[in-house]
Amino acid sequence: MQIELINTGSELLLGRVLNTHQQWLGKKLADTGYILSRQVTVPDTAESICDAVQAALSRSDLVITTGGLGPTSDDITRERIAAQFSKPLQKDEAIAEHIARFFSQRKRPMPKSVLVQAQVPEGALVFNNEYGTAPGLAMTVSLSKSFISNLQPWLVMLPGPPRELRPMVETHMLPFIRQEFPLKEEFHCCTLRSMGIGESMVEDRLLDRIRPLMEQGLDLGFCARTGQVDIRLCGHGSEMPAIIDKAESLIRSEIGKYIYGTNDDSIEKSVVDKLIAKDQTIAVAESCTGGFLGHHITSIPGASRVFLGGFLTYSNELKEKMLGVQSETLAKNGAVSEKVAIEMAEGARLNSNADHALSVTGIAGPGGGTKDKPVGTVWLGLASIGHKPIAIQKYHPYDRETFKKATVNQALELIRRRLVKNE
Amino acid sequence: MQIELINTGSELLLGRVLNTHQQWLGKKLADTGYILSRQVTVPDTAESICDAVQAALSRSDLVITTGGLGPTSDDITRERIAAQFSKPLQKDEAIAEHIARFFSQRKRPMPKSVLVQAQVPEGALVFNNEYGTAPGLAMTVSLSKSFISNLQPWLVMLPGPPRELRPMVETHMLPFIRQEFPLKEEFHCCTLRSMGIGESMVEDRLLDRIRPLMEQGLDLGFCARTGQVDIRLCGHGSEMPAIIDKAESLIRSEIGKYIYGTNDDSIEKSVVDKLIAKDQTIAVAESCTGGFLGHHITSIPGASRVFLGGFLTYSNELKEKMLGVQSETLAKNGAVSEKVAIEMAEGARLNSNADHALSVTGIAGPGGGTKDKPVGTVWLGLASIGHKPIAIQKYHPYDRETFKKATVNQALELIRRRLVKNE
Repeated sequence: MQIELINTGSELLLGRVLNTHQQWLGKKLADTGYILSRQVTVPDTAESICDAVQAALSRSDLVITTGGLGPTSDDITRERIAAQFSKPLQKDEAIAEHIARFFSQRKRPMPKSVLVQAQVPEGALVFNNEYGTAPGLAMTVSLSKSFISNLQPWLVMLPGPPRELRPMVETHMLPFIRQEFPLKEEFHCCTLRSMGIGESMVEDRLLDRIRPLMEQGLDLGFCARTGQVDIRLCGHGSEMPAIIDKAESLIRSEIGKYIYGTNDDSIEKSVVDKLIAKDQTIAVAESCTGGFLGHHITSIPGASRVFLGGFLTYSNELKEKMLGVQSETLAKNGAVSEKVAIEMAEGARLNSNADHALSVTGIAGPGGGTKDKPVGTVWLGLASIGHKPIAIQKYHPYDRETFKKATVNQALELIRRRLVKNE
Repeated sequence: MQIELINTGSELLLGRVLNTHQQWLGKKLADTGYILSRQVTVPDTAESICDAVQAALSRSDLVITTGGLGPTSDDITRERIAAQFSKPLQKDEAIAEHIARFFSQRKRPMPKSVLVQAQVPEGALVFNNEYGTAPGLAMTVSLSKSFISNLQPWLVMLPGPPRELRPMVETHMLPFIRQEFPLKEEFHCCTLRSMGIGESMVEDRLLDRIRPLMEQGLDLGFCARTGQVDIRLCGHGSEMPAIIDKAESLIRSEIGKYIYGTNDDSIEKSVVDKLIAKDQTIAVAESCTGGFLGHHITSIPGASRVFLGGFLTYSNELKEKMLGVQSETLAKNGAVSEKVAIEMAEGARLNSNADHALSVTGIAGPGGGTKDKPVGTVWLGLASIGHKPIAIQKYHPYDRETFKKATVNQALELIRRRLVKNE
């Protein structure tokens, strides 16, 4: 089955916006058993969009476009595609009502121009947009110029904003694809997510042991990101669940302590789930990460059951005042030190009355580095009831954003290992 | 001039990796006056790569590929492209020496396979790789099948890893393009970034006034993200700077108070820059955003000059203990209320001794909503020396991540407006 993704938007080609649709949609489709054959980005001009759609339809079973369904003058996908395939646009009253309600609920005046989004090409299926105003549209298209006269590929048009597109794909598009293009063989996929071990080390330790399962059809893939390696186990057929289970057991027996979750799990979800299961609470004390650790923990729904709060002590004064870090400790060791990390974690735990507290103090850069403590140096602390507080040093000489991300991941891994050990 | 970018890599289509090349290269080229006409992602198969390159060359002046130049078995771009266009590969001694030195400097053994990267198609230009082993390659290609027999487009092949590609583009590819394809007319571009006004409202208020400038060649584009709209003004020719200036004045006179910056500015950078200029400090008190506001402020290098710290008071107990919110206020109004937002902001300002303090208290969802205060309800507070504290209510019934992002943006906009008013 050939699937092509067409992202429309001059801002993508001008590099003003990162194309996150390709990754997100590619992954969602692949995990459902459908693999993107090709992806194209074209500018917001009628000619570019129509040419790309025509070319894609001539070689695909399914073509998905993103963007160009909004109310402004550069949103031309709906209108031009309808014209190209001679599908008259008709006003859909249910969509018009949804749009009007969307504005009235937000107590915002409704510009008339937005009602263009209620126009639907004749015969098209409508994917409701629960988080915005432009619905998704799906229609079959007759390719008159095609050599195969009965070729009727599907064209799906999705809105551009990710917060509208993503729920629409989950709720409407994937069920539609599964129904319209049933897989000939079952497809199974499982991703194991690891932290704290490098990609080549993972491969060295696993490849020989997994090879016999690969000969039975298992597809093994690795994907490395900041401090993390995902191990993807996929394959077709009714035997595959058992083969994937075997592979998972082998992998866990070899590198199990590095594996924090499966599929869409995040390290923060793993930590929050474990805390909920143990009925324990956590607090954070952050310097260089400036709230990024608290943000990760609170990104998990239900975090309020375990996350009490945090202390963003960027200045030394606030480290003393909010966390009780001793001024002598700061003067003698500097803010980025083992002792300060430990005093921060202890102070956060005592002042919040949480079961655990994580602390972070480091030099994110680009300024602030010294010869002894170069940019990228960071100390992570952990204080838990009934344990001696500990601190570990890490070094992430990257840009500021990568530094923060790597640091937060390692802080979460520090508490995760403690929660696992106590199990 | 037609420029097409071809990203090779099955991991891109499987959604394992985010394609950052498109944005980075698109922006670098556009800022130099060259605009990508099209971008394509294809899998790592010889047929896909050769087909895409052939099709791109037939409609372009310049085709750029990324990836597939490395030493492993799935790196096939160099070899297949050379074969497709009948350019014999020849060993380049200088590259071979560079590769050998690369390994010896790192005291790593050199696998023989890496020397394949010293193979250069006959007549190709070499872009040295200062940060890796695979050089970039540029060559003209004769398209025998083309109708125009003297059409000789350029094909540039770049390595996949961003840390190798980016310096190579700056040092070698852009100078090459400027020399080989001198711009006939100057190119100019300016993006105005707005917050707090919807995309269709922006267009309604601007389009009629900007139209005469568009008739003089100005290209006007909008790009909406969470709570933000970018307004892009671009065009060619020596008259364009004056036309863009006129458009910018018109836009600022119409919706100036919503515009927080230009080009690569972020709202957080705008706030940090203004605080630095005024020599003022800020603290935050966050409930539902859990540190995301602090993270945004501290993502700006130099934020430590103005950001003192923050109070992540997720639990009511910590709102009382860390910020001095009255238990009666909480009992009477609930945590998500105007009065609590104000007491949080005041408490944060007093306890940190900052000039300004922002507070956030809301219901991120998916749980926790009530009829009176549905999921998405949020109060933002601001306390500043010499001002009566204020609080505003917002409503973001989105997923948790979008809720947090929209809320943080509006909190930053709240302090930005105060800093602008005081100017």
